[in-house]
Amino acid sequence: MSARSTSTQAGDVARADVAVVGAGPIGLAVAWRCAARGLRVTVHDPAPGSGASAVAAGMLAPVSEAYFGERELTGLLVESAARWPAFAAELTEASGVELGYRTEGTLLVGLTADDLAEARRLWAYQQEIGLPVTPLRPSELRDREPALAPRVRGGAFAATDHQVDPRLLLPALRIAAERAGAVLVPGPVRTLADLDAAVTVVAAGCGAAALTGLPVRPVKGQVLRLRAPGGATPGFRHVIRGYADGESVYLVPRSGGEVVVGATVEERRDTDVSAGAVLRLLRAAVDVLPELAEYDLVETAAGLRPGTPDNAPILGPLPGRPGVLAATGHHRHGIVLTPVTADLIADLVTTGRPDPLLAPFRPDRFTGPAAPDSAGSDPTAPATGAAAADAVPAAGGAGVSAAGDDDVAARTSEEDPWN
Amino acid sequence: MSARSTSTQAGDVARADVAVVGAGPIGLAVAWRCAARGLRVTVHDPAPGSGASAVAAGMLAPVSEAYFGERELTGLLVESAARWPAFAAELTEASGVELGYRTEGTLLVGLTADDLAEARRLWAYQQEIGLPVTPLRPSELRDREPALAPRVRGGAFAATDHQVDPRLLLPALRIAAERAGAVLVPGPVRTLADLDAAVTVVAAGCGAAALTGLPVRPVKGQVLRLRAPGGATPGFRHVIRGYADGESVYLVPRSGGEVVVGATVEERRDTDVSAGAVLRLLRAAVDVLPELAEYDLVETAAGLRPGTPDNAPILGPLPGRPGVLAATGHHRHGIVLTPVTADLIADLVTTGRPDPLLAPFRPDRFTGPAAPDSAGSDPTAPATGAAAADAVPAAGGAGVSAAGDDDVAARTSEEDPWN
Repeated sequence: MSARSTSTQAGDVARADVAVVGAGPIGLAVAWRCAARGLRVTVHDPAPGSGASAVAAGMLAPVSEAYFGERELTGLLVESAARWPAFAAELTEASGVELGYRTEGTLLVGLTADDLAEARRLWAYQQEIGLPVTPLRPSELRDREPALAPRVRGGAFAATDHQVDPRLLLPALRIAAERAGAVLVPGPVRTLADLDAAVTVVAAGCGAAALTGLPVRPVKGQVLRLRAPGGATPGFRHVIRGYADGESVYLVPRSGGEVVVGATVEERRDTDVSAGAVLRLLRAAVDVLPELAEYDLVETAAGLRPGTPDNAPILGPLPGRPGVLAATGHHRHGIVLTPVTADLIADLVTTGRPDPLLAPFRPDRFTGPAAPDSAGSDPTAPATGAAAADAVPAAGGAGVSAAGDDDVAARTSEEDPWN
Repeated sequence: MSARSTSTQAGDVARADVAVVGAGPIGLAVAWRCAARGLRVTVHDPAPGSGASAVAAGMLAPVSEAYFGERELTGLLVESAARWPAFAAELTEASGVELGYRTEGTLLVGLTADDLAEARRLWAYQQEIGLPVTPLRPSELRDREPALAPRVRGGAFAATDHQVDPRLLLPALRIAAERAGAVLVPGPVRTLADLDAAVTVVAAGCGAAALTGLPVRPVKGQVLRLRAPGGATPGFRHVIRGYADGESVYLVPRSGGEVVVGATVEERRDTDVSAGAVLRLLRAAVDVLPELAEYDLVETAAGLRPGTPDNAPILGPLPGRPGVLAATGHHRHGIVLTPVTADLIADLVTTGRPDPLLAPFRPDRFTGPAAPDSAGSDPTAPATGAAAADAVPAAGGAGVSAAGDDDVAARTSEEDPWN
């Protein structure tokens, strides 16, 4: 590692094996994984960790985030969540930072009869596709979380939906990446042509659109942070996801006393905090868990998630741009998808062979005939990852370059992958 | 003025004519008035303007703040509000600072039939004591403020209830005081014995309790600041005071786009912002004026008002402490009461004769037999200013020193009041 550090002075930036654009969780985790495999890695970001992850709640929730019509995405969420325990342990080992990784599980609750009916439709779907959602009797619900409002009509338990604190994850990833030899370059990247690495990984969140032309758009989310009064621990221990009079809200308790309350999903690109959003989030939160009214409101914030036309991330070779890989579009799932993204992208960089898991998420799914370019500007277009990805190999042309893969592979070998 | 400045170097601090403790609006205005009369004035505050005024809304509202059982206070509010136009003009002239003084008046509204019934009881009282409250038909209400929620059941107009921006008032007062020769000393005052001035004015807000033993207690208020989106002017021009489903809320629009939403009244001494208070304020605000949901929430804050057992300020000679005057306990009325307090205290300092207007607000009203010391610690004690003040002259003893007044008077003359 010290030899690695010596060979990655700032003067060497232009000759990196891998240049990662973006020092959010995805970029840093890719950098860590690549550097740990012996590659010379630079990470370019004028403001590391200042993107969506700065306000993210850190739910690792493949089950409660499993929505109708997003089977491929759900599969990847499940895969990545399964990697989280080992990933967290390895990262804490590498960085010396505890991540606030907690495994109490997630309670799903409905406030009114209508809320519960809506929630049950989703739970039925989640069970139908084999995910572990366990309906609870009201008494069981209150046994698990006595602080729930008496009005709460019913709920369910997702034991495998865990949480991590993104504000601990980010510094941990940065330390681990730097210890592995990655070099953080604190400047902006205006165009990929500025980077002279053998492979470039674009993990720039919303910034990926301008750099690559990919259909990544900002999806605004507003999030609150409360704190239990007097430095106490929150009076509940599960992540709680509630439907409350038609509003959706989640409550994430941290050991240190913080409770994250989120989140709006808005097709806007500003980061202003609006009175109406704060009102709706607080109302839903207090309706579900009345004691939160006594908590301090310590932060209101908004961030921009990198959304995509099919709500799934964009992972793999960029069509027509040999040596450029995308790792963006993680939307509401950046934290849970960090381990699998880092593993699969690092694999792709070193072996040149895309893992089959990547197939539904290839960048070229938005350029085939089944999903024309215009779909990228229509967030309501029901282009599933599966349909688009399936269409691509048959499509061939239209700027899609299988040579992109080959090019990466051709320059990769066990000895000196980027010679 | 330059001669004055020369004679009030920091080295002269110990030999000031008047030492004012506290650089909030009261302290600074007293200092300005005294310095303008030729007195050498020092103002002592480690953090000028950091008290209750830093979050105050700046309503100048003797009419809508006229509550049952507070006749003397209402009289002083009316008197001070009447002085505000000339005070504002003179202060802007002296400081060069516009104060955001606005005279559109105040709309009083009730959201539900219950809210309106409660409001009407108060309006009837206000009319009964001769204050100008004009009930409006719903159509008149909407003619005045079309942005009001359709649900608003009815209202009234208080044409003489105006507003000023405390965040402009404070710097203006500081400039005016300093230009008049007052010297700001940015250190704390731990005990009045540290000050070697001929007269000391304690205008330290909640801090007056520790310095004087007066029954001043912190009364917490939480306040929000919204901002019209895109730099627009708020879509309403009156101050709006609403009753909304039992919650009381006020909305103060500033020309620059800010809207102040306030305020809680809590018997607490912390300055934490609580989720429940923000929820209640936002809910009431949006219920009354729905467009506020689209406004940015730019600030949440809490301050501590200097409350007193009878909700009225404490103005005049401190019993048993010759040369010490109190100007504190302004509770929710510090901004509106600034002109009259400054005038009356400056008069008292220079003439030694308390204006009759001060009679109900004398510090010794809490030390007579009608209002024993222990009343100071009981905020619910119904000690009216009138009863307490009337009792004092007859009471005589009990630490009350008429010599306090005489002492001030004895050292006062037209030529050289503090020789």
